[in-house]
Amino acid sequence: MPVITIDTPALNKEQKRELVNSFAKSASKIIGLPVSAMVIIINEVESENVGVGDTLLCDRQQSE
Amino acid sequence: MPVITIDTPALNKEQKRELVNSFAKSASKIIGLPVSAMVIIINEVESENVGVGDTLLCDRQQSE
Amino acid sequence: MPVITIDTPALNKEQKRELVNSFAKSASKIIGLPVSAMVIIINEVESENVGVGDTLLCDRQQSE
Amino acid sequence: MPVITIDTPALNKEQKRELVNSFAKSASKIIGLPVSAMVIIINEVESENVGVGDTLLCDRQQSE
Amino acid sequence: MPVITIDTPALNKEQKRELVNSFAKSASKIIGLPVSAMVIIINEVESENVGVGDTLLCDRQQSE
Amino acid sequence: MPVITIDTPALNKEQKRELVNSFAKSASKIIGLPVSAMVIIINEVESENVGVGDTLLCDRQQSE
Repeated sequence: MPVITIDTPALNKEQKRELVNSFAKSASKIIGLPVSAMVIIINEVESENVGVGDTLLCDRQQSE
Repeated sequence: MPVITIDTPALNKEQKRELVNSFAKSASKIIGLPVSAMVIIINEVESENVGVGDTLLCDRQQSE
Repeated sequence: MPVITIDTPALNKEQKRELVNSFAKSASKIIGLPVSAMVIIINEVESENVGVGDTLLCDRQQSE
Repeated sequence: MPVITIDTPALNKEQKRELVNSFAKSASKIIGLPVSAMVIIINEVESENVGVGDTLLCDRQQSE
Repeated sequence: MPVITIDTPALNKEQKRELVNSFAKSASKIIGLPVSAMVIIINEVESENVGVGDTLLCDRQQSE
Repeated sequence: MPVITIDTPALNKEQKRELVNSFAKSASKIIGLPVSAMVIIINEVESENVGVGDTLLCDRQQSE
């Protein structure tokens, strides 16, 4: 704790490294707790499992 | 925001479309915020990753 | 299960009633599981605890 | 409800059975609600999707 | 990590102590990770913020 | 979407501003999606509602 969870489109491993590094360091500095206390969970969500407004993200992308 | 998350058994794409459409429109009408503000995350969970009472859903289904 | 969670601005009790009623019935019909299986958690979030883009919702509302 | 969610490394089916059985029974006894009211969601997370401190779990394991 | 979250009716501090103690020890034994790695978040939810089936828990309790 | 949730000890408004600003900008840069697409939910959790290992955070703090 703190626990940070991010629901995101699929990422490559380098993006995950940067995200975890950036979030842990920012949160540590702002909240005033050690970097080592941070736990970050990356939840990759396919575009057919996300709705923005009343439309699936996968349908919205096709129509754009 | 609002953000709606649903943990559900596997769904086909048409079911996902209907769910997102229905949730976004209902929430918009009831809460009084635009449909476009709604974010919906569908989290499909296998029956061996769900416990109902003290039993995995996959075991319960087999014994029924 | 299914479990539906909604992060939302504060609601009155009548809005909560309608939301739960609407979500449970829609999800039951679309997913094909009994209404009684649905669990819905309403998480009311203050506008200073929500960021949209890089701005707190409470700051955005003041500047509009 | 209550709803218990666990983010965990991959587990085999026997581990999931034990976890659900143990959590449901403990929670029922401590909270004072029937075992049958408990819903448990197991979310298996790959080590490249978890950050502990500023490092991905998959990188930390390699360097140990 | 592992991270365990429980949505529950209000609990007193002794119940919270027992829950955390029980969950951390069970999860450690079953998953095979140190007790110290466990993070548990207790989310107390009022009965007017929970729907079971299509009914708020607070309404269901009154009619029983 | 992306949706970022953080479970954290209580923060003041300036800390929340900085957190949202930092997370939204980092995530946008790393993931390659517009800052405006980010939704961030701050969930302040009291120390008696967090377990680290088998101990409530509020008990651990007293004994330190």
